[in-house]
Amino acid sequence: MKKPLILVTNDDGITAPGLRVLIHIMNKIGDVVVVAPDSPQSGMGHAITINDTLYLKKEKIDNGPQCEYSISGTPADCVKFAIREILDRKPDLCVSGINHGANSSINVIYSGTMSAAVEAGIEGVKSIGFSLLNYSWDANFKPCESYIYKICLTVLNKKESNIILNVNFPSITNKFKGIKVCRQAKGYWEDNYEKRISPLGKEYYWLTGKFINQDDRKDTDEWALKHGYVSIVPVSYDMTSNEGFNKMKEWIID
Amino acid sequence: MKKPLILVTNDDGITAPGLRVLIHIMNKIGDVVVVAPDSPQSGMGHAITINDTLYLKKEKIDNGPQCEYSISGTPADCVKFAIREILDRKPDLCVSGINHGANSSINVIYSGTMSAAVEAGIEGVKSIGFSLLNYSWDANFKPCESYIYKICLTVLNKKESNIILNVNFPSITNKFKGIKVCRQAKGYWEDNYEKRISPLGKEYYWLTGKFINQDDRKDTDEWALKHGYVSIVPVSYDMTSNEGFNKMKEWIID
Repeated sequence: MKKPLILVTNDDGITAPGLRVLIHIMNKIGDVVVVAPDSPQSGMGHAITINDTLYLKKEKIDNGPQCEYSISGTPADCVKFAIREILDRKPDLCVSGINHGANSSINVIYSGTMSAAVEAGIEGVKSIGFSLLNYSWDANFKPCESYIYKICLTVLNKKESNIILNVNFPSITNKFKGIKVCRQAKGYWEDNYEKRISPLGKEYYWLTGKFINQDDRKDTDEWALKHGYVSIVPVSYDMTSNEGFNKMKEWIID
Repeated sequence: MKKPLILVTNDDGITAPGLRVLIHIMNKIGDVVVVAPDSPQSGMGHAITINDTLYLKKEKIDNGPQCEYSISGTPADCVKFAIREILDRKPDLCVSGINHGANSSINVIYSGTMSAAVEAGIEGVKSIGFSLLNYSWDANFKPCESYIYKICLTVLNKKESNIILNVNFPSITNKFKGIKVCRQAKGYWEDNYEKRISPLGKEYYWLTGKFINQDDRKDTDEWALKHGYVSIVPVSYDMTSNEGFNKMKEWIID
């Protein structure tokens, strides 16, 4: 059987430990091409580079069999560029991550990791974003490995092509309780802006904040993660609100 | 009756003609505070600034009664900062635009204009993104004005708070045929990367591309716009795929 072609990317940049772990796992499954940002791109959402130039660089970071490139752009740029310019055929799977930090609930909107997966989905490529609820650069990705392996194999074996998954792992040292298929929990960030003064006396601000979960449903990703499960949210890029669509039919605008 | 408080933003930057038109219309409806990027932010998707500092500047661009600020960040940053740091109460409405260019179909994902509207929606603020299907800086926004006015008044008068609308105007010189409530059409960008050589001999790339509509349903935004209607897509930031959620319940992952 022909080996699957797997595109690997992330938003923490090509040297991030989470990406290196993901490459290692994918090398067991297929032919791996890595196209990742040359610098951290967290919080980039679905940004694409249209007002600036892009640089491509061939990389050799470890002794693995994968092909690697870095791009001076966003995660969505990496996926677009890989599919149009680097790969000689459409990949069988695109995986993004493993992100250092949560992409559950509303974080899917801000996430560079998930924007790469969504971009692949728009291109008709099955895709999965993986994130660990631990922001540390030295986080322990070990417990995620067997789960990532089996989730990828399962997705590769499915007939349908429109699969985009947002997979999050709780940050626990012992074993996960299992996998839950979930909905995106409703939540938001209670932001704070910390004001500081530059050495030249100019005011500037840093965004800080705290995630607020507004959702107590048991079928959400926040519930699953809080209770020690790996959460998988199937993602759609059709942002139409069906509820709004039905309600607005009765509106009179004048 | 108390005047509504309206937050105005965009992604083309605080001096963009489309924004100035929107401010002019909003001044007829309520008390207007403008918080917009200090430079163009097209294609920024839902990016937020977490690895860099933000600068705020009080602006005075014309003689209107509105209060104006520019921020060295993305459209989503502008909305977050306005709500947390500038406004003394939650605004009654957030409007974004008028964008110089289409945000119909899949463009909602890449759009800075719509990310500002979605960010306001996450914060529980009714919001509307407006876009004209004309990329020219000198585009004629005149035909949009009465529509924007009546759409905003209608939304302000609704009891429900979870309203996020993606409004697109066809680029026509005569009258619009009316308004259609639509679904986001399925489509994608057929990208091309144009390779060039810098004066120092380094290769670089520009993203170019062509939008491909894959959707012939008559209730989509692409259909409405093509046939001369103003399209309104009600937007949800819950990206859960209901179809995927139901299908995946039967998956066995091991």
